[in-house]
Amino acid sequence: MSTDPLVVFTPSGKRGRFAIGTPVLTAARQLGVDLDSVCGGRGICSRCQIAPGHGAFPKHGVTVAADALSEWNAVEERYRQKRGLKPGRRLGCQARIMGDVVIDVPPESQVHKQVVRKAASARAIELDPATRLCLVEVDEPDMHEPSGDLERLARALRAEWGIAEIRADLSLLARLQKVLRKGKFQVTVALHRGHEGDAAQVVEIWPGLHEGGIYGLAVDLGSTTIAAHLTDLVTGEVKASSGIMNPQIRFGEDLMSRVSYAMMNPGGDREMTAAVREAIDTLAGEVAAEAGIDPALIVETVFVCNPVMHHLLLGIDPVELGQAPFALATSNSLGLAAKELDLTAINPRAQVYLLPCIAGHVGADCAAVVLSEEPGKSDDLVLIVDVGTNAEILLGDRSRVLACSSPTGPAFEGAQISSGQRAAPGAIEAIRIDPRTKEPRFRVIGCDLWSDEPGFAEATAATGITGICGSGIIEAVAEMRLAGLLDESGLIGSAAATGCARMIAEGRTHAYLIHDATASGGPRITVTQGDIRAIQLAKSALYAGARLLMDARGVDRVDRVVLAGAFGAHISPLHAMVLGMIPDVPLDKVTSAGNAAGTGARIALCNLAARREIERVVRDITKVETAIEPKFQEHFVAANAIPHKTDPFPELNRIVTLPQVSFNTGAETAGRRRRRG
Amino acid sequence: MSTDPLVVFTPSGKRGRFAIGTPVLTAARQLGVDLDSVCGGRGICSRCQIAPGHGAFPKHGVTVAADALSEWNAVEERYRQKRGLKPGRRLGCQARIMGDVVIDVPPESQVHKQVVRKAASARAIELDPATRLCLVEVDEPDMHEPSGDLERLARALRAEWGIAEIRADLSLLARLQKVLRKGKFQVTVALHRGHEGDAAQVVEIWPGLHEGGIYGLAVDLGSTTIAAHLTDLVTGEVKASSGIMNPQIRFGEDLMSRVSYAMMNPGGDREMTAAVREAIDTLAGEVAAEAGIDPALIVETVFVCNPVMHHLLLGIDPVELGQAPFALATSNSLGLAAKELDLTAINPRAQVYLLPCIAGHVGADCAAVVLSEEPGKSDDLVLIVDVGTNAEILLGDRSRVLACSSPTGPAFEGAQISSGQRAAPGAIEAIRIDPRTKEPRFRVIGCDLWSDEPGFAEATAATGITGICGSGIIEAVAEMRLAGLLDESGLIGSAAATGCARMIAEGRTHAYLIHDATASGGPRITVTQGDIRAIQLAKSALYAGARLLMDARGVDRVDRVVLAGAFGAHISPLHAMVLGMIPDVPLDKVTSAGNAAGTGARIALCNLAARREIERVVRDITKVETAIEPKFQEHFVAANAIPHKTDPFPELNRIVTLPQVSFNTGAETAGRRRRRG
Repeated sequence: MSTDPLVVFTPSGKRGRFAIGTPVLTAARQLGVDLDSVCGGRGICSRCQIAPGHGAFPKHGVTVAADALSEWNAVEERYRQKRGLKPGRRLGCQARIMGDVVIDVPPESQVHKQVVRKAASARAIELDPATRLCLVEVDEPDMHEPSGDLERLARALRAEWGIAEIRADLSLLARLQKVLRKGKFQVTVALHRGHEGDAAQVVEIWPGLHEGGIYGLAVDLGSTTIAAHLTDLVTGEVKASSGIMNPQIRFGEDLMSRVSYAMMNPGGDREMTAAVREAIDTLAGEVAAEAGIDPALIVETVFVCNPVMHHLLLGIDPVELGQAPFALATSNSLGLAAKELDLTAINPRAQVYLLPCIAGHVGADCAAVVLSEEPGKSDDLVLIVDVGTNAEILLGDRSRVLACSSPTGPAFEGAQISSGQRAAPGAIEAIRIDPRTKEPRFRVIGCDLWSDEPGFAEATAATGITGICGSGIIEAVAEMRLAGLLDESGLIGSAAATGCARMIAEGRTHAYLIHDATASGGPRITVTQGDIRAIQLAKSALYAGARLLMDARGVDRVDRVVLAGAFGAHISPLHAMVLGMIPDVPLDKVTSAGNAAGTGARIALCNLAARREIERVVRDITKVETAIEPKFQEHFVAANAIPHKTDPFPELNRIVTLPQVSFNTGAETAGRRRRRG
Repeated sequence: MSTDPLVVFTPSGKRGRFAIGTPVLTAARQLGVDLDSVCGGRGICSRCQIAPGHGAFPKHGVTVAADALSEWNAVEERYRQKRGLKPGRRLGCQARIMGDVVIDVPPESQVHKQVVRKAASARAIELDPATRLCLVEVDEPDMHEPSGDLERLARALRAEWGIAEIRADLSLLARLQKVLRKGKFQVTVALHRGHEGDAAQVVEIWPGLHEGGIYGLAVDLGSTTIAAHLTDLVTGEVKASSGIMNPQIRFGEDLMSRVSYAMMNPGGDREMTAAVREAIDTLAGEVAAEAGIDPALIVETVFVCNPVMHHLLLGIDPVELGQAPFALATSNSLGLAAKELDLTAINPRAQVYLLPCIAGHVGADCAAVVLSEEPGKSDDLVLIVDVGTNAEILLGDRSRVLACSSPTGPAFEGAQISSGQRAAPGAIEAIRIDPRTKEPRFRVIGCDLWSDEPGFAEATAATGITGICGSGIIEAVAEMRLAGLLDESGLIGSAAATGCARMIAEGRTHAYLIHDATASGGPRITVTQGDIRAIQLAKSALYAGARLLMDARGVDRVDRVVLAGAFGAHISPLHAMVLGMIPDVPLDKVTSAGNAAGTGARIALCNLAARREIERVVRDITKVETAIEPKFQEHFVAANAIPHKTDPFPELNRIVTLPQVSFNTGAETAGRRRRRG
């Protein structure tokens, strides 16, 4: 017996000997080479395209003869004429091994394509979604072996795809017989795999080969906004993203006011549940329309959200989350059918996955940040801060990860600020104050020019200058401190004390005028003493949470800081550190992760193993409950000031020196005491 | 070390030695003694009551001292005062072993009580339903270990009851937190076990110890009637039974006319689905009201039905069942939530179980008959006939079981018979014709007297004599044959040929007058030639089906016959054999199984293992499709006659001799040919 031909696959380098006549797809499967196929080798899906090499490959020790593969066959020719096939490509299910050969699997023929996540990270997500397409030939019914159509479909999936067990709901059963007959017993099924050992769920079934693709929705359900990213589950590509306001805002701006609404109004939780489900349904329809796809092709949805949103989405009264011990109804990940959440725009059998919650205040959104940022795989000690109405804070490295949440309130989002507004065109998002002249210059959303650059007035004429958004107020407060307009305690100096004509007396306190558009009917934008106090409260809460985790870990500094959250992307690290929002680290050690929770949702959507990973990882996270730690108050009070800094880490590349000034006359302090009384 | 005390449990006889101080419940569990407990040994459910013996038990080699058990304790005293405890009874979780002892477990303390099925059978069903009650103490939430309430409930069930995994739907999750707190974290859950390896479903949860019981509904969903039996899942007792007409009758009397309705009317299947689900929901509410229980305590339902009813119940268009190859959408058993079938009267999370279907014409009702009658465990060859609009026929013994269904049509139910009617008061259900005088005497439903007995007229005055029901027409035809009024071919003789004045000429054929109430405005009840032909068709179909199974088995006689079906209970074996409905066997070898399908449903409701058994058994049944077997037609034609019999089995106790007569003049035959054209 002569030696069987040697087959080398690239780029994997996997190799083996196969009998003459073995289809390339068969060889690939036996070697575990990642070569796609939906039709199971019937020459109709073309997913298994390969590119055979020619000539000598010294690296692999193989010389490929011209007849190393079987001749171009009729199936390939028909496919080429009908759909087109790039020159040099063969169908792996048709081409048979006739001699030693090197076969390249192009990226588009790999099932587990790498879905590049983001430029900032080397990590890529391997595409291996929970739901996949399988084409099968089902045995026709036979009176002598009268098993049901579903049972014969199960048998075909077992034989052709190795699926141990399937289940189908009644709505699928009601479609099954017609579709099987329409497809002449050849059908494509969208199969959803749950936990290992669970039966795979038949989500959808199409006659013949389904070429319309399947899609998934990653939903970041925030207290304020709901964002949805529509992802092609075959290519991993994001086809469309869209967001809408969370309609629950009408029941309360922040989480605790919504919990209060539920407590005070019988049935209030059900109202909020109905509102958010309807909004998600609308959003799903919109994002599908934007991508130009049939919403019934959305077969999967992943949700990330904080615990209150989580419970309200599920129809659970969040009242227990409003009081110690903040007990979750359920903390594990959840798999549901979309219809259980009244989602009707998408496929009625679409499967929903909710990431696990970490604790009563640390939700599935934080778990998604963990999945995205992987603090447990960090060599150095990383502090991750997801800034929103609540801040989720993570601290960790390979040895251990800790998590807490801190009630920063909505000031960082521009709410409860006198000139504050949401991030929208016309909002001041960046500001600089000249330390010498105390004059401000700023940039507004929707315009790349600074306010002192030529053409700014014209460029902003349409939107006007309407207020300050979250990142703008943080910069404004930090710049005021840097310019000596604010003292360590956070008190704004008077015009006399600061020598700045923009200081306006407001009762016993002062405000800093950034922009006055009253002459043209616009607003007068100032930073008031109240604004400073609101930001101080927020930043103290954030900082105190981080300190609490550092205490628990027994450290007093961290190696790097990651700012997450849609808002985190816009915060200037310098200003955050001036304010004392985050512990001091070298500026180049502060990075933005963008919407890490949304990224985590996308990862869970695109990769089944990632779900199992985060379910395992969250169990090992040490949860710190800020509400019951006495030291939280201590840190909170201590963090209130914006002190003069004497460069505590001279070895680090600090670039900030805060002026040592004091405006305290007692007046504002008395006023504050009264207000807080 | 002295020898530990010896403990003997009766009636099981299980025995073992236990350390002094071991609670009796603990000892029972270790020995596998069937001693109930819902509260897990907390002294509150009283299910573990035991009766310790006193004195010498030579049989067990034990002498029980007065202090063999620990002293009556405060928990037992409190229970006795509050709820009462029979003299001599102790609580097994409180009484501790102090010396050698014999302990009797009274029947009401056994979990797996034997639920006696019926007098006719030695077999009893062991009570081990899929849904059971468990009382657990759940850990209170703890901020330092912030797992969800559901996860802590799961942990408690694992620790106290050995439940590996649980799942709960959103409606249960929405209740969970309130109930846990209301019960101070002590709750009773109704847990439903599915297939091995599946997570147990939390169907209901109550604060503290739930003493209201749980119930199951066994539903026999027939083409004509729907019967429901409400069973106490703790005692196995049937609390109430009720039936209603299947409202689908308005869409078609028999199965095939309903399939036609679905084929001819778009959405017709959905109309029929909605109608039957609504009827079942109504029936469930009624049967609960009859038993005086809260319908929300119905946590389980088992359905048995033929394939068309099965598909229509599930919302599947039955069109495929109306044409070869009669493909079922699904043949396996099914587990569902009640709400998926729009059942709202019972617990919304109640679990529904449908028995498997055997083939496209042999449904879950036939599987239930197999479960009830166990042909596969029979030592002799048994033929089981479930007579309805379709007849399900089973033939088998330990070596092999065969099944088919045969389209008998509704004649056996009194339909398509000139004086036919459903079995209801006033219907003739039994009839005898004097072979000498040719005079009939009969009995009607609602009266125990024969028509020639004194007082009959008075007793039936209220109902009148309104028609003939199924069993009546069978007897009438058989009696006419025995009296020589009918020849072998089924032709009715004329008055002249038979010498009977009751023969009425009707065109070219004759009819036999049973009762004439026209003088008092009542009906004239006759058996016409058309009636005879309808019965001949029905009995030929039934007989041909049985013969087909006998052919497949290679036998030409069977050892015994079981008549099943509500109607089967009323058929006279003698008359059935005269007619040739069933193969000849000794009369004492024909028994009635009553409503065997309903009994099978009750077995599946009361015993989880029975579900696994029938799922396994149906796979091994040989299915014979009457519609495609050429020999069916042959047997059918051959079975049409009611021939003169010459005692084919002289060794058997035959008691029938049919007269050898012939009335064939050609007239009726010509008429028949024309009609059938």
